Amino acid sequence: MKIEGRNAVFELLKTEKTVDKLLLQRGAEGSAGRIFAMAREKNIRVQFADARTMARESETGRHQGVIAFVSEYEYAALEDLLMPKAGPRLVIVCDGVEDVHNLGSILRVAECAGADGVIIPKNKSAQVTGAVVRISEGAANHLRVARVPGVNYAVAKLQENGYWVYGLEADGEDLYAADLTGDIALVVGGEDRGIPPLTRKKCDKIVSLPLYGNVNSLNASVALGIAVYEAVRQRR
Amino acid sequence: MKIEGRNAVFELLKTEKTVDKLLLQRGAEGSAGRIFAMAREKNIRVQFADARTMARESETGRHQGVIAFVSEYEYAALEDLLMPKAGPRLVIVCDGVEDVHNLGSILRVAECAGADGVIIPKNKSAQVTGAVVRISEGAANHLRVARVPGVNYAVAKLQENGYWVYGLEADGEDLYAADLTGDIALVVGGEDRGIPPLTRKKCDKIVSLPLYGNVNSLNASVALGIAVYEAVRQRR
Repeated sequence: MKIEGRNAVFELLKTEKTVDKLLLQRGAEGSAGRIFAMAREKNIRVQFADARTMARESETGRHQGVIAFVSEYEYAALEDLLMPKAGPRLVIVCDGVEDVHNLGSILRVAECAGADGVIIPKNKSAQVTGAVVRISEGAANHLRVARVPGVNYAVAKLQENGYWVYGLEADGEDLYAADLTGDIALVVGGEDRGIPPLTRKKCDKIVSLPLYGNVNSLNASVALGIAVYEAVRQRR
Repeated sequence: MKIEGRNAVFELLKTEKTVDKLLLQRGAEGSAGRIFAMAREKNIRVQFADARTMARESETGRHQGVIAFVSEYEYAALEDLLMPKAGPRLVIVCDGVEDVHNLGSILRVAECAGADGVIIPKNKSAQVTGAVVRISEGAANHLRVARVPGVNYAVAKLQENGYWVYGLEADGEDLYAADLTGDIALVVGGEDRGIPPLTRKKCDKIVSLPLYGNVNSLNASVALGIAVYEAVRQRR
């Protein structure tokens, strides 16, 4: 897998993940110097290349002079997210998020808000590719993402382990009236179809954001960001 | 200007905006039928085209069988946003948002939250193009967007007219300690550089979201969505 762009590679180097090789553009300036120093310190093989080679190696077209080659993204086990911990737990469940920008953006906001992990299904969902890691600004490398065969099963497991599961959709109860202070999972659905019916039925409650305009829905990652930060606010 | 995609065109037809022509793909199903009926009711000229013509006319490549031709986006006057109103006013100021996805997403969340308008500068900023209208899911057509030569001047005008201006950046005071119940303007900056120094200096206060992860920033539209909805919550 390739991780491209300065921020994403910089975040990658701060983790314990194994980097096979770092490709740097000759004459790349600014933050690339810091990346080079970090890579040297960690004994990562650094290779220099010209602009043409960089463009050929790039998958996103936005490498900013830096491409890191890493092994495939290491997903966490669902069990890791079920472990008890000192404070209240917060898990994000994506069911049917197919847009890579939305998934990357969800991982970014989940990490910023200090969530304990994210669950995605193996099918009918964007996966954590290099592009998603880049869009997440490297947040994916600091976050536990569990990939499960069925979201239904994962939701049941979360509930067995003390989580209260909230589905985020347009026709539910007021989000601001919901108690988000305990162990909670927030479920977000796909761009067009929302949360699949089977998963929706499993949710303990459906909650919604108030909408005052003519456009009747928010972008999935924006809506999730608002809900996650409402949990953050309530927990403080 | 072309507005493409079913949701965006559907939202457009709900407004009073003048639509010059509607291009529909032959055999397009589902919500396109509803769009056709609405266009007929409003006496809009409808023209049918094959897939190839649609693809040639499309600017975004995501027309979903529907392209509307409208006059250029009609910006509001800054004065429209300065008018007193019954409840507390809420204005979003974008200074240096160059990414069309971020601008579209900001317009969408502003409209959903019931904001009174958005201000963007004429230079060094994404403009409200057809693509931005589409990304906003048509929200741009229901929202007053004022385009100003200088954001500085607009901020001064807002302050003269009773607005309290909050800049949203990483190194400010806690957003949740801020009083967002009065007439407020929320300033959001560019993807890389944040709020330009001159505008930042003009803000009455800089506020920040708490960050608990390793990645030290949120996407501009997500951060704005969280702040706008915190204002919504406080105002209820």
